[in-house]
Amino acid sequence: MPPQRPDGPFDWIDAQRARRRRAGLVRELRPRPADSPLLDLACNDYLGLAHHPEVTAAAAEAAARWGAGSTGSRLVTGSTELHAELEAELADFCGFEAALVFSSGYTANLAAVTALTGQGALVVSDAGNHASLIDGCRLSRAEVEVVAHAEPEAVAKVLDGHRGRALAVTDSVFSVDGDAAPLARLAEACRAHGAGLLIDDAHGLGVLGAAGRGAPHAAGLAGAPDVVATATLSKALGSQGGVVLGPAKVVEHLVNTARTFIFDTGLNPAAAGAALAALRLLRREPDRAARARAVADALYRGLTDAGLSAVRPDASVVSVRAPSPEAAVRWAADCRAAGVLVGCFRPPSVPDGISRLRLTARADLTDEQVAEALAVVRRTAPVAENGRP
Amino acid sequence: MPPQRPDGPFDWIDAQRARRRRAGLVRELRPRPADSPLLDLACNDYLGLAHHPEVTAAAAEAAARWGAGSTGSRLVTGSTELHAELEAELADFCGFEAALVFSSGYTANLAAVTALTGQGALVVSDAGNHASLIDGCRLSRAEVEVVAHAEPEAVAKVLDGHRGRALAVTDSVFSVDGDAAPLARLAEACRAHGAGLLIDDAHGLGVLGAAGRGAPHAAGLAGAPDVVATATLSKALGSQGGVVLGPAKVVEHLVNTARTFIFDTGLNPAAAGAALAALRLLRREPDRAARARAVADALYRGLTDAGLSAVRPDASVVSVRAPSPEAAVRWAADCRAAGVLVGCFRPPSVPDGISRLRLTARADLTDEQVAEALAVVRRTAPVAENGRP
Ligand SMILES: Cc1ncc(COP(=O)(O)O)c(C=O)c1O
Ligand SMILES: Cc1ncc(COP(=O)(O)O)c(C=O)c1O
Repeated sequence: MPPQRPDGPFDWIDAQRARRRRAGLVRELRPRPADSPLLDLACNDYLGLAHHPEVTAAAAEAAARWGAGSTGSRLVTGSTELHAELEAELADFCGFEAALVFSSGYTANLAAVTALTGQGALVVSDAGNHASLIDGCRLSRAEVEVVAHAEPEAVAKVLDGHRGRALAVTDSVFSVDGDAAPLARLAEACRAHGAGLLIDDAHGLGVLGAAGRGAPHAAGLAGAPDVVATATLSKALGSQGGVVLGPAKVVEHLVNTARTFIFDTGLNPAAAGAALAALRLLRREPDRAARARAVADALYRGLTDAGLSAVRPDASVVSVRAPSPEAAVRWAADCRAAGVLVGCFRPPSVPDGISRLRLTARADLTDEQVAEALAVVRRTAPVAENGRP
Repeated sequence: MPPQRPDGPFDWIDAQRARRRRAGLVRELRPRPADSPLLDLACNDYLGLAHHPEVTAAAAEAAARWGAGSTGSRLVTGSTELHAELEAELADFCGFEAALVFSSGYTANLAAVTALTGQGALVVSDAGNHASLIDGCRLSRAEVEVVAHAEPEAVAKVLDGHRGRALAVTDSVFSVDGDAAPLARLAEACRAHGAGLLIDDAHGLGVLGAAGRGAPHAAGLAGAPDVVATATLSKALGSQGGVVLGPAKVVEHLVNTARTFIFDTGLNPAAAGAALAALRLLRREPDRAARARAVADALYRGLTDAGLSAVRPDASVVSVRAPSPEAAVRWAADCRAAGVLVGCFRPPSVPDGISRLRLTARADLTDEQVAEALAVVRRTAPVAENGRP
């Protein structure tokens, strides 16, 4: 055996860290207090339900009744009647035959992509897709073709040349810019080629479609035999967890084959109970979905009126370009100093290398709060002269 | 474009389902009621904390104070002071410099393996490793060498021929058979070759080491600059979530590069609060760890005394062989009918194709309950004549 090397096995990390520092791309955790005075336009709690007393009470009741953890994988002891109830109501609400709940949207996406493809299959993946779908593609052992963002023609072209199993994969609302995928045209392209369509509705559930039933429902695709959707319980439903929605046979297939389902502990009861309560609240107060969209629209108009380069929001996410990573970080810091919390996306978290602020609309923001947030974001914008970063 | 094919894009699933049925390998979810009368020897709640009133009360309080969800990724709004507190106490308890909490043990493992390896690196992975470590290897783009189970010599041999970055990866306690990895000898082999060691302590935390500080602590490896550990908050701590423990620079590296950290919503506050309460309880009542091991030992002795083929448990998991998948399923069903819930592992969830019952020891089982469970498992064993399945 060779003698022990003088340098430690993790010393290569030091060079990467130095590179990050030089590039101004260091990320730091900033734990927030419970009573933050900041106006929060950074979170994904689109309907304002994470702190709703009915939702947090349901979390508490579920923990008391079912335990703090689910105690095992879903196929051993991790499935309670609460999980089954949540699955039935999610399927019913979103318009699908069946639903399967996961510990996160991330693991739900890994499961859906891997279990529906595999060696010999083709996956056609939008260039703007979420990291969890991309990791699903990497894990799938399928042939992966990444196509131009939101271009059904590009999907059709790749499918044209293929014989055999194929699946197109897309976010319904893209997490960085908040733009929607052309779902109807995508489904048409898939159907013309006998391909399946997998839609990640993480940012659509609770916001898009009648009463927030989601983007697949809005596009008339919910319940179709060739469509599978995923979603997270951690954004509009204010909790944690993920779900795969689709034909019952697809759900049965996932139960039997999806590694992130079989080998993962079931979702903790508090999160399942909270998501179920949020879903029921949304059913009772369907206007929350429309309000979230109206707030997004008001943010967009206020930003573009000031000459800022924002993307028209299709759901609750409003993105504004910044001239550089450093400018984006400074802009977000100035907003924070002025009492408004906004998201700051920069490389390598953005597929196109463009840095931006990301504002999220919440249904529970008042018009006054929206005006206040807009005033701050405008006042702190990097280039004041022409307003165009 | 070709005309729409008559068969749906997911019809290939039907053939797989038929094959599963013929092979007797269909898995079905069996949601449990809150008041199940069954004696549970199937869950991973090793210390009996999932239903402890202090733990469930902490879950409820955290949801009320911090919200039902963390509302965003850890780098945006998903880090609360509660997460920071949990990370500090986990690091301190387990003896590492720093800790980083994830939404599950699964995503923690994906993060640790991918972030510590990458293109050009070598990963040496034990053949019995958990699915999440295997998926981490697959996602890593590293060269992966799978080596014989629990053989440090095999690891050394693979490392012998390698120049450059290398990481050995192992479960501390293997989830199927409950046997422990030879950590001290593994660390020696790694050190002799300048390789890092990643230990998944999912089944060790709370059970092994002084007061349950885990297998790395017991082996004198906690806090070493060349060792990283992962664990889940969903087993001995009775909650949900995962953690990576290691040098502060490794944790900083994960914050900046690990996709399942950056692109995943933070752990829900109820789960974080429950895990923290469980950890504090364990500190106050350190005997729980020893009791879990004593119960496992009693189960093992009771099974082998009856001539059953059990594996000597190194922690809380006791595995007993069954002659076939069908026999294992029937055995588990007979136990259930007699009031005892046991786990049933069979292909494809077992790496070696051998079906077994899996009994988990809980610290809160009384001696009478252990005797009752043993009587039932023995009475229902497949081959009564010689007692050897
Ligand atoms: C589009 C998209 N898909 C999936 C996820 C993952 O969901 P989760 O955070 O529940 O793991 C996210 C965000 O986190 C997302 O933005
Ligand atoms: C060895 C091992 N590692 C990791 C995990 C994953 O942890 P979690 O269930 O928290 O995702 C498990 C079990 O679920 C396990 O047994």
